[in-house]
Amino acid sequence: MDYEEGDYVEVEFKGEKIRGIIMPKHSFSGEDILLLKLDNGYNIGIKKDHINNIKIISKKIIEEKTYTVKREIKKEGKKVTIINTGGTIASFIDYKTGAVKPAKTQEELLLLMPELTENYNINGINLFSILSENIEPEHWVEIARNVYREIKNSDSIIITHGTDTMAYSASMIAFMIQNLSSPVIFVGSQRSSDRPSSDAYMNLLYSLKLSYTDLGEVVVSMHGSTSDDYLLVHRGVKVRKMHTSRRDAFKSINTFPIAKIDNEGVKFLSEYIKRSDNPILMDKIEKKVSLLYFYPNMDPEILHDIGSRVKGIILAGTGLGHVSTKLLETLRDLIKNDVFIGVTSQCLYGTVNLNVYSTGREMLKAGIIPLGDMLPEVAYVKLMWVLGNGFDPKETMPKNLVGELTDRRVGYEYRI
Amino acid sequence: MDYEEGDYVEVEFKGEKIRGIIMPKHSFSGEDILLLKLDNGYNIGIKKDHINNIKIISKKIIEEKTYTVKREIKKEGKKVTIINTGGTIASFIDYKTGAVKPAKTQEELLLLMPELTENYNINGINLFSILSENIEPEHWVEIARNVYREIKNSDSIIITHGTDTMAYSASMIAFMIQNLSSPVIFVGSQRSSDRPSSDAYMNLLYSLKLSYTDLGEVVVSMHGSTSDDYLLVHRGVKVRKMHTSRRDAFKSINTFPIAKIDNEGVKFLSEYIKRSDNPILMDKIEKKVSLLYFYPNMDPEILHDIGSRVKGIILAGTGLGHVSTKLLETLRDLIKNDVFIGVTSQCLYGTVNLNVYSTGREMLKAGIIPLGDMLPEVAYVKLMWVLGNGFDPKETMPKNLVGELTDRRVGYEYRI
Repeated sequence: MDYEEGDYVEVEFKGEKIRGIIMPKHSFSGEDILLLKLDNGYNIGIKKDHINNIKIISKKIIEEKTYTVKREIKKEGKKVTIINTGGTIASFIDYKTGAVKPAKTQEELLLLMPELTENYNINGINLFSILSENIEPEHWVEIARNVYREIKNSDSIIITHGTDTMAYSASMIAFMIQNLSSPVIFVGSQRSSDRPSSDAYMNLLYSLKLSYTDLGEVVVSMHGSTSDDYLLVHRGVKVRKMHTSRRDAFKSINTFPIAKIDNEGVKFLSEYIKRSDNPILMDKIEKKVSLLYFYPNMDPEILHDIGSRVKGIILAGTGLGHVSTKLLETLRDLIKNDVFIGVTSQCLYGTVNLNVYSTGREMLKAGIIPLGDMLPEVAYVKLMWVLGNGFDPKETMPKNLVGELTDRRVGYEYRI
Repeated sequence: MDYEEGDYVEVEFKGEKIRGIIMPKHSFSGEDILLLKLDNGYNIGIKKDHINNIKIISKKIIEEKTYTVKREIKKEGKKVTIINTGGTIASFIDYKTGAVKPAKTQEELLLLMPELTENYNINGINLFSILSENIEPEHWVEIARNVYREIKNSDSIIITHGTDTMAYSASMIAFMIQNLSSPVIFVGSQRSSDRPSSDAYMNLLYSLKLSYTDLGEVVVSMHGSTSDDYLLVHRGVKVRKMHTSRRDAFKSINTFPIAKIDNEGVKFLSEYIKRSDNPILMDKIEKKVSLLYFYPNMDPEILHDIGSRVKGIILAGTGLGHVSTKLLETLRDLIKNDVFIGVTSQCLYGTVNLNVYSTGREMLKAGIIPLGDMLPEVAYVKLMWVLGNGFDPKETMPKNLVGELTDRRVGYEYRI
């Protein structure tokens, strides 16, 4: 049995099958005991003699071990689950090197914000502690399972997350858990939490106000301006990090933000999905998917190489979704070999339309599927999810599921 | 001799060596004559018996043949060279299919705009007629050579071009021809020229006003709003098509537009490079370069495949320029094999900084070169040019040459 610390496994013992993560050995348990953290947060020690089989569900990729910080429930306060995944919001400056590193525990983060624990009943889950450029599909599965487990008992779920790939993660969670009974709110910061200039505090504290609303979507909730005056709440599948460093780096693309949050409370700016009673979890992922921005002089051989490794490619074409006609032969071959090819636009704003120009029409004839105004990154994440959960991509990719496609688009210059 | 119609060749005959494009056979010339269009626009017929050797310089990629439309010079008017490359501005609707197709001749375009020929001395060059998603490095070389030949005799050079890859082409021409003696102005349209709603007419006519200024840069000159009120002139290496269909699709990124043009004339909005006396042409290109947007779950094998086919890769990382640490080993291997790796940000706004987070520092240690606030597409084009012309990419890529790097950046929300 080839398991190791950190693997998520299914253990068969004494007629029972249970799933959990293999924990490090404790001095008191010794070599004979396998320590397992169950999905519900409890630990169990199983005598190795009693084990008939251990099946690995997913290999270890998470460096930090999962543990939960439960707090005594106060009568009035809303119940909030905070799932920490790392990123700048949970980071501290290493004063030796000057570099920013993820914090080891959520305790350090919460200690900086006494208002959080005074006014809300916080259920803290320190899921992992990574910089978000290192996020992998296995992390998304872990986040989704934790959200799903906690969502019915929470008035809101906050996921602290690095901003680099926050929009990718928010999109994936939006597809993985639908019919939300509480909002799932991705919160990050552009300055680490131990800096006086940090935006972490306001982003977190204002986002909690969504606990009092009927919002039932996966959102990204971040500074709406460069001052500390308000947040904007963006639909997870319609948002993009558009600036490397500004506090208001996140922008809703082709749509208005869902809400504005300031000192006075939450003000909704556009239509949104309301809370539901029956959240569903669909957490499978097909990893063999790729995202490729087209550029002039793209070598068809490169496209061919990628196509031979994956089950689907999302292209970000130019303008209305075009690629060079030089690539069409390779794309036709890939489609014949059952590789799904969907096309989005690298313009980001506006929508794909393959009916206007001759190139687009040839692309349609070749079997390439136009994906409307879906963002390239969102289409990429959606395709992993669509293929993973056994849907037909030709049918499901162009269909709006959770707001990733919009008919009534707004321009770049929306005013709040 | 494996040449065919449309190839650019060097012909050795009777002790002479001349270069030109092989033209289609004419009935009067017959099988014994090779018809060649020279760089200066003249045609020459060479007896095949007299030919000692034909060396192919570049294979045919240009469907439409080059020909020039010279017009009688009027005394007062400014001299303008209009080089047509195709695109929507030179397109017409095919009323059978409803699709937009490039026009065959520039005559058709000019006929629609009598003001052009009344007030300016137009030197029209119908270089080719393609939709710009099909632009290739060979086209860029052709454009650059034509610009270089005409620039000293023109008060401005207009390049009509499809909007899809206009920013790529403008960037390449900005590197290929420096110290401009006239502005080189890329003009396109989002609606074809035979439509009443077309923006072609205003974009072209207002852009001509730059003939009267001292501007000496390669620029993109397009609608500044969705109304027909003014154009914005963007630096070619700092602009991006940000919308699939709007007239004001082009936005200066990280910098102010250079100028605004309305009915009253040209108003400069920021500093610019002035006309010079000694334009230089550096028109070599290394085609083995790739542009790759990073995404979570990127397979290191895909990166490896691409790296084995090219001499340089521009990455568009997340946030400040990060990629997953999972890719570092592959990147280190590629760098060892002399593949240049430069990094930009997929945020588009802001600047790469690999000194803030631990991931960035590891990337620097691996030998990855950060490229400041250079746009991913511009960095891609620049790398082709840097390698093609024999510069050291480690030294030249991070250096500002024609305004592609800026220290004083402006935010997204500039007001005109």
